[in-house]
Amino acid sequence: MAHVKEHVDVEFENPLLVEGLPGVGLVGKIAADHLVDEFDMDLYATVHCESLAPVAVYHDGERDVQPPVRIYAAPDADLLVLQSDVPVNAEAVREFADCFTAWLSGRDVTAVYLSGMAAKKGDSPPAMHGVGTGEGGARLEELGVDLPSESGVISGPTGALVNRAAEEGLDSVALVVESDPQFPDPEASRVLIEHGISPLVDVEVSVEDLVEHAEDIREKKEQLAAKMQQAKDEETSQAQPLRMYQ
Amino acid sequence: MAHVKEHVDVEFENPLLVEGLPGVGLVGKIAADHLVDEFDMDLYATVHCESLAPVAVYHDGERDVQPPVRIYAAPDADLLVLQSDVPVNAEAVREFADCFTAWLSGRDVTAVYLSGMAAKKGDSPPAMHGVGTGEGGARLEELGVDLPSESGVISGPTGALVNRAAEEGLDSVALVVESDPQFPDPEASRVLIEHGISPLVDVEVSVEDLVEHAEDIREKKEQLAAKMQQAKDEETSQAQPLRMYQ
Amino acid sequence: MAHVKEHVDVEFENPLLVEGLPGVGLVGKIAADHLVDEFDMDLYATVHCESLAPVAVYHDGERDVQPPVRIYAAPDADLLVLQSDVPVNAEAVREFADCFTAWLSGRDVTAVYLSGMAAKKGDSPPAMHGVGTGEGGARLEELGVDLPSESGVISGPTGALVNRAAEEGLDSVALVVESDPQFPDPEASRVLIEHGISPLVDVEVSVEDLVEHAEDIREKKEQLAAKMQQAKDEETSQAQPLRMYQ
Amino acid sequence: MAHVKEHVDVEFENPLLVEGLPGVGLVGKIAADHLVDEFDMDLYATVHCESLAPVAVYHDGERDVQPPVRIYAAPDADLLVLQSDVPVNAEAVREFADCFTAWLSGRDVTAVYLSGMAAKKGDSPPAMHGVGTGEGGARLEELGVDLPSESGVISGPTGALVNRAAEEGLDSVALVVESDPQFPDPEASRVLIEHGISPLVDVEVSVEDLVEHAEDIREKKEQLAAKMQQAKDEETSQAQPLRMYQ
Amino acid sequence: MAHVKEHVDVEFENPLLVEGLPGVGLVGKIAADHLVDEFDMDLYATVHCESLAPVAVYHDGERDVQPPVRIYAAPDADLLVLQSDVPVNAEAVREFADCFTAWLSGRDVTAVYLSGMAAKKGDSPPAMHGVGTGEGGARLEELGVDLPSESGVISGPTGALVNRAAEEGLDSVALVVESDPQFPDPEASRVLIEHGISPLVDVEVSVEDLVEHAEDIREKKEQLAAKMQQAKDEETSQAQPLRMYQ
Repeated sequence: MAHVKEHVDVEFENPLLVEGLPGVGLVGKIAADHLVDEFDMDLYATVHCESLAPVAVYHDGERDVQPPVRIYAAPDADLLVLQSDVPVNAEAVREFADCFTAWLSGRDVTAVYLSGMAAKKGDSPPAMHGVGTGEGGARLEELGVDLPSESGVISGPTGALVNRAAEEGLDSVALVVESDPQFPDPEASRVLIEHGISPLVDVEVSVEDLVEHAEDIREKKEQLAAKMQQAKDEETSQAQPLRMYQ
Repeated sequence: MAHVKEHVDVEFENPLLVEGLPGVGLVGKIAADHLVDEFDMDLYATVHCESLAPVAVYHDGERDVQPPVRIYAAPDADLLVLQSDVPVNAEAVREFADCFTAWLSGRDVTAVYLSGMAAKKGDSPPAMHGVGTGEGGARLEELGVDLPSESGVISGPTGALVNRAAEEGLDSVALVVESDPQFPDPEASRVLIEHGISPLVDVEVSVEDLVEHAEDIREKKEQLAAKMQQAKDEETSQAQPLRMYQ
Repeated sequence: MAHVKEHVDVEFENPLLVEGLPGVGLVGKIAADHLVDEFDMDLYATVHCESLAPVAVYHDGERDVQPPVRIYAAPDADLLVLQSDVPVNAEAVREFADCFTAWLSGRDVTAVYLSGMAAKKGDSPPAMHGVGTGEGGARLEELGVDLPSESGVISGPTGALVNRAAEEGLDSVALVVESDPQFPDPEASRVLIEHGISPLVDVEVSVEDLVEHAEDIREKKEQLAAKMQQAKDEETSQAQPLRMYQ
Repeated sequence: MAHVKEHVDVEFENPLLVEGLPGVGLVGKIAADHLVDEFDMDLYATVHCESLAPVAVYHDGERDVQPPVRIYAAPDADLLVLQSDVPVNAEAVREFADCFTAWLSGRDVTAVYLSGMAAKKGDSPPAMHGVGTGEGGARLEELGVDLPSESGVISGPTGALVNRAAEEGLDSVALVVESDPQFPDPEASRVLIEHGISPLVDVEVSVEDLVEHAEDIREKKEQLAAKMQQAKDEETSQAQPLRMYQ
Repeated sequence: MAHVKEHVDVEFENPLLVEGLPGVGLVGKIAADHLVDEFDMDLYATVHCESLAPVAVYHDGERDVQPPVRIYAAPDADLLVLQSDVPVNAEAVREFADCFTAWLSGRDVTAVYLSGMAAKKGDSPPAMHGVGTGEGGARLEELGVDLPSESGVISGPTGALVNRAAEEGLDSVALVVESDPQFPDPEASRVLIEHGISPLVDVEVSVEDLVEHAEDIREKKEQLAAKMQQAKDEETSQAQPLRMYQ
């Protein structure tokens, strides 16, 4: 029953799909939301895996109500973004990875997985390194993305997705950036976009917004994270405002 | 095994089905019970999903004992109402949504999902907005129902039903009304009926009762909510009075 | 695998089956045990549902060891009794209802479900009312059994059995009697037999024993209830005396 | 997948199988271990049910490592013994009973189930009574084994095995002996052998060892019981000495 | 879905596979990591069982990200090593044993299982004994490996693997070494290699490194064990440094 449902017909060549699930520092979510805005992307598909909370999301001033995990498309940039309004249930990350990878593996899509790595803030910008599966590593090599300077493990839903990509030999890259361990970190997201996603998509992506409104984004995403957690835990039917920044 | 069982043959055109599961402020339950009374509706079907407590309900002065979740019909008004005497098990909302939507999706029925949104009581009546899936949104647009003024998420069994409707592209609407966060809120139910259900059904529905006996309803529904919770948790076979208002 | 196993061949016409599972006041169990004694009934079948504790029961001075839930038969009175030495696991009442009703529904048997309803002891004997499914209600109507004087819900394994009977449209009756909320209540069982079961079976059933040895029965059933609970919770293989009254 | 695996070909007529799972007083385990020694029995089969801890057992001075639940054979005495080095998981006794009885029921084997019943030590030796399923009761009758003097219930894995034997109508006997409720009770095992197993096998079995080294056995079995419990709970891979008496 | 995936084609004769799952003293993990280094082994296969944490591991200075449990090969030495960066979920050891043994049993591979046995450190080096299944015991006999001096049980994932090997009659050996009960114990790993693995592989394996850098290894493995546990428990997507010694 779990599956990805495409709602419109869109043509791609060898698109990148940037994964933006909530994780440490919300680095992936902030980057993914930013891309959807900057590229003015359209809804392409919705994701219906058992491990995702069966809730319905609506947006300020819009009439349509939607599932919480969606894929947006910018066909001109050959780009897809996985956007999520809810966290993946921790005990079911394997199911999510199976469900989503089953859709990915039948398509000529290179996934770009994004992960934060908790680190103290210093004077220099957050460091980023990249690893890959299949031909993903070679692609990072060409672009000169840093190699990891010490061994590490990626866990959670993103770790499960990379694990599956490695198992299936799919082409994918995983970008790991130093991040604030507790709070949303727009600067880390900026690094992911400038030094990872932008070169991979081969399009200049403006990050002005992330820099200028960093404090604002941080606050709003923090509220969002609290609400997401709450919505997931609610037993009673009810609507709750999300007050999300988008 | 989970299914909806129709007990009588009734002819409909393109009926509305008003969902009245217990949720915040019991706004859906109060509205649904009111509609069953006002339209003098007859039992049409009973709902047998795994996620519903397997209890038996009887009513004052009536000989028949029934399952706790039932669909009532008013064929003249082309109207169906989903009435529930028990809450849906929180951990099984997905199963309920699958089970009930499987029945809905094969029929030309437009579901009207009802949800409260916790808000402080003010001087003005509770605000209501509506969102939709499939052609549901357009229908609200024609009737001039308010758009959401901020983003939000619908959770619980009702959220799961809307989620499924969005996935399947079914025509449905979800009406969200501000509600007392803790106590049954007949005034919020009145707003749902006057500004949402009445225009959708295109029949004037009297809400006098909800206005005049608001305090009475509030008290009785509160007792009911307590009993419902208790009946669900009981391990030992026993009968318990419900003291419900209907 | 779950099923009812018939051990002997017995001919019935349209038998009643009196359900005697442990519940509030043990009203069903006391009534069922009394019927087995009074009619000198023989073992007819054993019940093997997943939700029943897999223990083995033996009786004082008898050589055969048996499963804990059994059906006894009195073919001359066209009567069956469901007798249980263990409670049904609360979290699995649905499975029990499915398992047992699967056997019932293929036979021309009218089930008589028995439930206590907690009430304070007064001067008058406990009140009893009856509700039904299928043709069961009409049968009670003919016999003049009281209607419920307020709405209520039957929960636990007995509630699940009635729920299933309502779903399937089987002929059944449910007799609800006021009962001591905490202790075994032989007087409530007497009311069930005198005003409900006796008229339904259309045979005078002596209840002298229940009246004369009420205190004795109460004490012994209380010991039994404690033992039943303990046996269900035991992890280690062992035998335990039941000290049951039969 | 669950099954019993026979490792050698042995011919039997209508063998007895003595069950020696750990239970109250370890009465079955002590008796079974004693029989394996006295008859100098050989490994015949290993038992692989889901409910058994998947651990590996090795013995002092022996090279082969084995599963923890095994069947030993003495073809000359037409005798099998079920020996276990681990307890059965309490929540899975039904699975064990299904798994083991599936093997039993296809063979012409009469099972002898052994159970302790907690009782205070008195001056006279522990009392024992026997009950049966199928033709098992008649066999006990011929041998003059005592009938139960009060009703009782056998629970745990042994109770589940007897329950299944009753359901399937298999020939089996269950011997119940008074036992120390907390500590290993070699005297109770002696009574089982002398007054139950020995007459059933129709061979004189020396119990001298159980009498002379009772204190020694009690201590060693107590250590074993502690170790068994610990091994079952261990999460980390490791080896642990069993210091068992055999 | 659970399976072992071979990534390259390698020819073997009758290879040994040394199992290096984390357990008491990390004796197996330290030995396995050492063998991978000493023989300069190449990645041969990755292990994808349900019971393994679905995380992704990357190594200092390397571009490829990998599943956490992998098989390395040294075809010249006819040797395979099972290396793991994560512990096996304790409640799913049976699944792991089934999953991995399904791969083993179809190949002509002799598994060498490694287990620590908690013991106080003394003046003499840790004692080691060996037991086997199938022809494994005979092989140890030829090499003069010590027999167990008291009975014992191997539990955890390694115990489950040995249990399955015994059930299936596969050729395997289990080496049990005395180990520090709480801390990583490189000396115990040295004993496993010198007195067990080296004779079995019939190749001299240098253990200098394990002796000279024992303290260093102990510390680094301790950090690793802490990290492994943490990564397994993390619910949020994130990357974490492993700081592993390899």
